Amino acid sequence: MVKFVFLTMLKIVLLGTGNLATHLFEAFAQSKEANVVQVFGRKNVGLEPFKKKVATTDNPGELQKADIYICAVSDNAIELVAQYPPNKEAIVVHCSGAVALSALPKEIKRGVFYPLQSFTKGRQVDFSKVPVCVEAENQEVLDVLLALGKSISHTCISIDSEQRKALHLAAVFANNFTNHLLHRASTICQEYNLPFSLLKPLITETVAKLDTLSPLEAQTGPARRGDTDTQQKHIKLMNDIQDREIYRILSQAIQDTYGN
Amino acid sequence: MVKFVFLTMLKIVLLGTGNLATHLFEAFAQSKEANVVQVFGRKNVGLEPFKKKVATTDNPGELQKADIYICAVSDNAIELVAQYPPNKEAIVVHCSGAVALSALPKEIKRGVFYPLQSFTKGRQVDFSKVPVCVEAENQEVLDVLLALGKSISHTCISIDSEQRKALHLAAVFANNFTNHLLHRASTICQEYNLPFSLLKPLITETVAKLDTLSPLEAQTGPARRGDTDTQQKHIKLMNDIQDREIYRILSQAIQDTYGN
Repeated sequence: MVKFVFLTMLKIVLLGTGNLATHLFEAFAQSKEANVVQVFGRKNVGLEPFKKKVATTDNPGELQKADIYICAVSDNAIELVAQYPPNKEAIVVHCSGAVALSALPKEIKRGVFYPLQSFTKGRQVDFSKVPVCVEAENQEVLDVLLALGKSISHTCISIDSEQRKALHLAAVFANNFTNHLLHRASTICQEYNLPFSLLKPLITETVAKLDTLSPLEAQTGPARRGDTDTQQKHIKLMNDIQDREIYRILSQAIQDTYGN
Repeated sequence: MVKFVFLTMLKIVLLGTGNLATHLFEAFAQSKEANVVQVFGRKNVGLEPFKKKVATTDNPGELQKADIYICAVSDNAIELVAQYPPNKEAIVVHCSGAVALSALPKEIKRGVFYPLQSFTKGRQVDFSKVPVCVEAENQEVLDVLLALGKSISHTCISIDSEQRKALHLAAVFANNFTNHLLHRASTICQEYNLPFSLLKPLITETVAKLDTLSPLEAQTGPARRGDTDTQQKHIKLMNDIQDREIYRILSQAIQDTYGN
C-alpha cells in the first residue's frame, strides 16, 4: 500500500463543502500524489464553487470509487456521512480535533486526518505550514495517511485520539480564547476612544517572541511583577463585570504560576 | 519651541538602564532630531553597557543640562527620579502606561512619553513600528514630545492620562493575558507529550487574521458555535483546576458575546 502511494495518484472523494473542505480541495490541487476526483455536498448551493473544477454530487448514492474518502463536515455530521462510501476497502477519515476515531463505523478502514489550523472563508492559507495529525488502527492505513499529509504539508505526525483531543483543547486556549481577549482589548479601546490598531505591534511582538522564548519566559506585566497597585487601578477602570472577572482570574493564575 | 526642534538636536538625558532605557537609547541613536547626551543609573553595574557609547553617571548631582529628561524607570521610582533634573526649564517625562502625568512634580514642565510595546532584553525591536503615546499640560511641551516621538516612530499620538491607563489595561489583555493562555496551551501539550510547535502556525494565523477581520468577526471554536458536547469533553480532559476555571469563564464570555 505504501508503494502504491508513490506509484499512482491517490484518488480522493471529498465529503463536505465548508471552509475546511474548500481549503483541503485547494491544497490537494497542488499535490502530486493525491487528486480529488469528486466533491459531495448535501446542499447543491454549497457545491456551486466546485462545479467548474471537479465532479460534484448531492446524492450519496452517486459517490465514485476512490482510495480515500475525507469527511470534512461538522462534528455532528461525521457519523452519518461516514456511511456513504460505496467500497468497503477504501479508507474513510474524518478531520475533527474533538471526535474519536471510534466514532467512525467499525467495519471500514477508518482513520483521522486533522489539519491544525483555523480556516476562514476567503482567507488564503499556506497549507504546507499547517500541521496535519493523523491516526489509524493499523500501520498500512497509517502509512497512507502520513503520505497523504506529507503531500500537502511539511508537518504530518501520527497521534492518538487522546492526544488529538488534548491538542484541540490546547488550540482552544491558543486561538479561541486569545482571540476573545483581543476582542475585549478592542472593546476597552473603543470605550476610551482609542484606535485598536495601536495594539497591533504589541500583539505581533507577543507572538514573535515565541521564536526565542517559551511563553513561561516571555511573561511580563503587573501580575507577573506582583504589582498590586497597578492591578487595583485597572480594576477601577473596567466598567464591564465580565472584564473584571477575567482580569481577576487571569492575574491570579499568572501570580500563582510565578509564586507572587 | 517647535521650530527649535527642527533647528538643533534635542539634548536628552536618559534616567534608567533597564530594558526600556536600552531600547530608547538605541532608537535615539538612529534619530536625526534627538541625541542622548548622558545616561543616569542608580547602580553602576546597569551603566556598564552604556559606558562605551555615551557619558554616564550614578550621581544625581552630576546630571548634565538637557532639553528633555526621560525617566525610563519602574513605576515606583518615577517620583524620586523626576526630582533629579537640574534645570527647571527642561521637560521631564516618564514612560509609564499606568502612572498619571500628575505624579510628576507640579513645578516642572512635565509630560509623558509612553511607547506601547513589551520590551525584552536581547530582543531587537523595530522602534519605528512602536506607537508612542504622549501627554503634556500645554501645547508647547506637547509639540516637542510629538516631534520627539515622530523622530523614532511612525506613530506618535497625543492621549490623556485616562486614555493611557485604558490603553495599558487593554495591553494587559492583548499581551500579558494572551501570553499566559499560550503558556497554559503549552502545558497541556507537554502533559500529553505533544510538541508546542504544532500550535505555532495556528497562533500566527490568529494574529494574521486581524489584518482583514476584527477579533469579533474572527472568533471560532466550540463556545462560538454553542457546541456544549465538545466543551464537556474538554473539561473532562483538564487535570488542572485553574485550567478548568479559565476554560469555563472564557467560554461563558464568548457565548454571552454571541448570544448563544
